[in-house]
Amino acid sequence: MQRGNFVGDKEISSAVIGRLPRYYRYLGELRGQGVVRISSQELSEQMKVTASQIRQDFNNFGGFGQQGYGYNVNYLYEEIGKILGLTKKYHMIIVGAGHLGQALANHTGFESRGFVLKGIFDIDPELGKTEIRGIPIQMMEALPAFIKDNGVDIAGIATPSSVARATATELYQYGVRGFWNFANTDLHLPENAVVENIHLAESLMRLSYSLQKIGTKNK
Amino acid sequence: MQRGNFVGDKEISSAVIGRLPRYYRYLGELRGQGVVRISSQELSEQMKVTASQIRQDFNNFGGFGQQGYGYNVNYLYEEIGKILGLTKKYHMIIVGAGHLGQALANHTGFESRGFVLKGIFDIDPELGKTEIRGIPIQMMEALPAFIKDNGVDIAGIATPSSVARATATELYQYGVRGFWNFANTDLHLPENAVVENIHLAESLMRLSYSLQKIGTKNK
Repeated sequence: MQRGNFVGDKEISSAVIGRLPRYYRYLGELRGQGVVRISSQELSEQMKVTASQIRQDFNNFGGFGQQGYGYNVNYLYEEIGKILGLTKKYHMIIVGAGHLGQALANHTGFESRGFVLKGIFDIDPELGKTEIRGIPIQMMEALPAFIKDNGVDIAGIATPSSVARATATELYQYGVRGFWNFANTDLHLPENAVVENIHLAESLMRLSYSLQKIGTKNK
Repeated sequence: MQRGNFVGDKEISSAVIGRLPRYYRYLGELRGQGVVRISSQELSEQMKVTASQIRQDFNNFGGFGQQGYGYNVNYLYEEIGKILGLTKKYHMIIVGAGHLGQALANHTGFESRGFVLKGIFDIDPELGKTEIRGIPIQMMEALPAFIKDNGVDIAGIATPSSVARATATELYQYGVRGFWNFANTDLHLPENAVVENIHLAESLMRLSYSLQKIGTKNK
């Protein structure tokens, strides 16, 4: 297995990886503000995590430079980007062009990070007459040929939950390995597929739990 | 602090709480299929977590019944629902009626869980002439009075990232305590506010990392 960005062949915990995008976001903001160097203490105050957590996380990747003098913001931003694979371009499709699928397709912010929307698919012939940002909505029948011709890295699953699992399995068979799942169900895919779930309903339930815990309820 | 659903006054870890909505989803599906009892082993196979993890998680809440005979699906579903606060109704508003805000407002699935959409707000006067599911899109100026009159538990923040923090702070001042944040930034709110973040870009970055790690890249 190739792990070009790793220091040695150390396995990095998924908790650390899970935190990298947030570091990347803050460093991008600092970079935009023209900040050149930042200490782990200053970064800690902005991000509201401990400086020791930051140093421990960064030590997984060799530490990214001297602590006493602070981190070079631009260097750190670029290195974390490389670790996250953001120097590459990914071909993405959205499957399911209902309200949520259309909202995702309309979101241009992902493209600047290298996630390029190549196609949108649905089963509704009426939608098949329309397009989003110049990308025509195609019928599901066109998927196998489209994936073969375009090379699709990531499929956003925005279908109804009832068909999400079968749809993802089909896409996997056509060669897609990355799944961004918005359906309220778990996809069941072989081990060499990677899935990121956005479970909106579960997020609301955690919010409900926390609201109940603080005892704040307006009505 | 009231913790009506807790066994004694034991503090439950956020990791356990974070897993409850997924149990709730699976139990809801099993219930829909007419399954009456299920063992931790069977549930473990379906959810792809260890049976020991399930038993440990449930032991935080007294165990939910005898293990040898399996769990009563309906009872377990209802108890977890109570712990998550899903027996209550929450008043929700969506702030920011762009593509994503509209998609959230159009999503009827949340209402069945008790999250009732009461209002939609934006700054665009053109949108102010429209409605979603019979709910008119109102201008931001109407927010203070609306919150006072309706009691708003949760605000979905679907504004541009650049104004999300200020918007949330304003909503907090009007009395909102639950924030469902879709903006690509962290809200900075006092401790008695609760925030659930849906960071789409960060989710894509984790997907990118994992795709790179398995070495699957079509182009």
